[in-house]
Amino acid sequence: MREIIKGFQATSQDDYQLNVTNIIKHAARNYGGQEIAARRPDGTMFRYTYREAYERMQRLANALKGLGATVGDRIGILAWNTRETYEIFFGVPGTGSVMLLLNLRLLPQQLSWVVNHSSPRFIIVDESLIPLAEEIAAESQKVEGYIIITDKDMRDIKTKLRPVYSYEALLDGAEPQFNWPNLDEKSAYGACYTTGTTGRPKGVYYSHRNVFLHSSNLIIRLGMGITDCSYQITPIFHIMGWCFPQASTMVGAKLVYPGKYSLDELEALSRIMVQEKVSLANGAPAFFLALLQYFRTLKEPPNLGGARLLMGGSEPPLDMIKGYHDLVNAEVIHAYGATETTPVISCNRPKPWLDRKLSEPDRWDLKRKQGYFSVMIDVKAVDLRGNEVPHDGKTPGEILLRGPWVTGAYYDAPGSEAQFTEDGYWRSGDIGTLDPEGFLKITDRLKDVIKSGGEWISSVDLENAIIAHPSVVEAAVVGVPHAKWEERPLALVVLREGSAEKMNADEIRSHLSKTFAKWQLPDKVLFVKSIPKTSVGKYDKKVIREQYKDAYTGVQSR
Amino acid sequence: MREIIKGFQATSQDDYQLNVTNIIKHAARNYGGQEIAARRPDGTMFRYTYREAYERMQRLANALKGLGATVGDRIGILAWNTRETYEIFFGVPGTGSVMLLLNLRLLPQQLSWVVNHSSPRFIIVDESLIPLAEEIAAESQKVEGYIIITDKDMRDIKTKLRPVYSYEALLDGAEPQFNWPNLDEKSAYGACYTTGTTGRPKGVYYSHRNVFLHSSNLIIRLGMGITDCSYQITPIFHIMGWCFPQASTMVGAKLVYPGKYSLDELEALSRIMVQEKVSLANGAPAFFLALLQYFRTLKEPPNLGGARLLMGGSEPPLDMIKGYHDLVNAEVIHAYGATETTPVISCNRPKPWLDRKLSEPDRWDLKRKQGYFSVMIDVKAVDLRGNEVPHDGKTPGEILLRGPWVTGAYYDAPGSEAQFTEDGYWRSGDIGTLDPEGFLKITDRLKDVIKSGGEWISSVDLENAIIAHPSVVEAAVVGVPHAKWEERPLALVVLREGSAEKMNADEIRSHLSKTFAKWQLPDKVLFVKSIPKTSVGKYDKKVIREQYKDAYTGVQSR
Repeated sequence: MREIIKGFQATSQDDYQLNVTNIIKHAARNYGGQEIAARRPDGTMFRYTYREAYERMQRLANALKGLGATVGDRIGILAWNTRETYEIFFGVPGTGSVMLLLNLRLLPQQLSWVVNHSSPRFIIVDESLIPLAEEIAAESQKVEGYIIITDKDMRDIKTKLRPVYSYEALLDGAEPQFNWPNLDEKSAYGACYTTGTTGRPKGVYYSHRNVFLHSSNLIIRLGMGITDCSYQITPIFHIMGWCFPQASTMVGAKLVYPGKYSLDELEALSRIMVQEKVSLANGAPAFFLALLQYFRTLKEPPNLGGARLLMGGSEPPLDMIKGYHDLVNAEVIHAYGATETTPVISCNRPKPWLDRKLSEPDRWDLKRKQGYFSVMIDVKAVDLRGNEVPHDGKTPGEILLRGPWVTGAYYDAPGSEAQFTEDGYWRSGDIGTLDPEGFLKITDRLKDVIKSGGEWISSVDLENAIIAHPSVVEAAVVGVPHAKWEERPLALVVLREGSAEKMNADEIRSHLSKTFAKWQLPDKVLFVKSIPKTSVGKYDKKVIREQYKDAYTGVQSR
Repeated sequence: MREIIKGFQATSQDDYQLNVTNIIKHAARNYGGQEIAARRPDGTMFRYTYREAYERMQRLANALKGLGATVGDRIGILAWNTRETYEIFFGVPGTGSVMLLLNLRLLPQQLSWVVNHSSPRFIIVDESLIPLAEEIAAESQKVEGYIIITDKDMRDIKTKLRPVYSYEALLDGAEPQFNWPNLDEKSAYGACYTTGTTGRPKGVYYSHRNVFLHSSNLIIRLGMGITDCSYQITPIFHIMGWCFPQASTMVGAKLVYPGKYSLDELEALSRIMVQEKVSLANGAPAFFLALLQYFRTLKEPPNLGGARLLMGGSEPPLDMIKGYHDLVNAEVIHAYGATETTPVISCNRPKPWLDRKLSEPDRWDLKRKQGYFSVMIDVKAVDLRGNEVPHDGKTPGEILLRGPWVTGAYYDAPGSEAQFTEDGYWRSGDIGTLDPEGFLKITDRLKDVIKSGGEWISSVDLENAIIAHPSVVEAAVVGVPHAKWEERPLALVVLREGSAEKMNADEIRSHLSKTFAKWQLPDKVLFVKSIPKTSVGKYDKKVIREQYKDAYTGVQSR
């Protein structure tokens, strides 16, 4: 860890705690009249104000206290983007408990593992998710009770969960005023678990200080303000909905919660956008791509009035970025982050001096990058030996991150220390370039690159290039152990029907050599009938690597 | 002090230090191409970039190190709003020294007192301020050297200061790279001394954490961003220029420094505004009132493109707020704060739900209030007994403030503890009302109200009402000790020539009773030829109170 140098003593109130409770107190004092609109399960809109929501947060806090929950407890949340989850975002952590967001997309056995690892005393469950909660409950018996979010009378709810409480009934029976504790800013506010494709989920416990500073960062990066209307598309169980609820509340924006939704409801979801005058939304490119395709089917696509759409997780295609601009007057903002970074640490925002210099096509192209980093975020891109690579927009490096909303550890995860450097950086596992203006371009996941002779070879780039060959249908490239070079690339190729005769490995290599150096070409190109895939349709590289692990044994040179 | 409750352990990097050095590192990485424009003494504009300024900051840091300055030292600054002061704002505190801003409007003996109290090892002095520095030097002999900001060769500078260095020569001789220490966020970044009309100046030492959080707050309250152009009108020695340099740098705004200026240069100052496309400026209402008057003399007043003008210190008149809007398309933003609050803790920004409700005159009227408070700022308005008054927009209370950019003490100022409450609030000495929307309206200074029978009577309100009488030229009201009521108001009135015969105390009281309750009326109204005034033309209430301190002795009832 870095040494911290103490200077002259200041007189400032440096012991004033940057906890999230101060955000909601601020909102209650100043934004009481602001509106919150939430889609009910029947599709109609429920409306109330910050003032009314704040009263319910206090009732919730009193109810939890009444059940025996206390400072330091974890409270599990299994819910959709409803107004109740908005209440939970402040009502639960305000008591000093940790809001543990359970990712309902995980497999039940993974979720049980998370619940056993984090030990919540209570779990708040949306009625529609009772079956999932029951599956988890079978494997995690220490939970002391389940609180069901439902409009129904509890006698009409059939469940094996025990004991169960009604969220509404608890609130009805609780006092409308709560005396919030003055929480240490370093206390955990919420927790999310990573959904690594390999290994166990890993717990990231976000401090109050982290969430406050990240929320401020979001406001500054997106220019959020009181005239905004925030649409919470990102599920709240994905990195706390990217802290949109907290940031929006801090500036007193109007809030819109879509409830449980699916891609079958694009008509309803887009109608809300127009009706509520949404100016800010967040979500995955997959959602917004589907929404744009829906807009393209309309005779008269709406004008979204310059709404900013924050996207992360994967890179939004250029065609989509332009499409939103041209068709519905909305701006796609590409951001970068992870569960470990709360998440937004980098955000693609224009720079006036660059805009003046760049041609229009270059300006659009720049929007595909992951943007530049936020203040207080330290970034390094390092090569295989751990040396920083030049910020030339070309040389790839693993992205290392440090800052007040980056995690410094995983909770109770022995062996995970290797994910952190001695000087306090978290290893993102992403490979990317940094250009002289600080713009990040993610090129690969570390696990998808082949380490050959001290250099990286991008398997994704090779795959894309092979697929571009007219005779090829599918291609997967993996690194296979090699005595001299550590790893060498191996390609599996599925040919178009009837192409087999004219094709051979050299034809593929010669095709690739137009864009790759000789040392980057796969030593073996194997033509196969099909490529092993995972349950979600991605190439199963673990299986491929295992299957071909001896392919280069005894091979002395490439 | 309040108890701090520790919750569950988080995994966040909570030991990442919120120091101001991280702001300039961020700016250097991401805003290198942004422009800084600074007016030279000859009126021409000097232009360079963040990148070039950053190199000079590093040279400055190395130069100070070369002189022997080290972590914890104080470095005095006696300068105008020049580009060198911008360099100093990061180059000096980045080394771990404290940037001590000397208010050159203070009397030399006050400044000497400040210098002796804060013990700077070096003082950086603008060439034009050498005579003032020499006056101070005579009284404060511990300063080890003076660094002169000048374009000239040092041989052409005549001064008794010893030893002296040239700022430019020091930078020329220093390395362009500095290895910034990782400063504890609780270390002092800068210091300003209050200029209390009574008593000694009191030192406020701002921590790095304070300045970072206050800058974020400014950005959020004003919606500052990379497309802004910030004009530094507020002198840098007034509460660090209200942290505009730090906030503007954090978002990469274009910066404009006017250099040394006076109200005689409104033509030049306003031309810069138009030419540089200033979108944000700060300053005292007195400056902006003069500027508006200048605009009013123009045949074709400029269009300022919606520029935001942040004003504090005193209340901008409604006529001026409207004038800026109607004449030059600029928005006056009224803010509230003090040296003790870094300063901006409250800011008048519109609320959409209020705007929809209010009539146009009421919307304008609302702009006269000091606005609502920022997130993380706790405010209380308390009566004479220390009880909170209702937030009804009517009941006045003394404003108490708490938060991360409020001071928790004065540096080395025995006896000043009474300015702070047990639960950590700073007593502002201002009296105001809070309305149900959280808007503050300052009505009086505590020292200007009369404490009568457990209630406050506003001397300012009484004065304004008396002056409204057609026969009155001037009026001052003070509180005079009273055996039964603690204090009672006494009015001194200067009459218009020739009005003396028809006027008497009852006529004044009867005039006042239209708007004041009977118990608020002055017991004595004395007609005088002139009212004692201070050197700056304000009523000298200390003298008046002393002169009439026995006026109510022996008086048993009002």
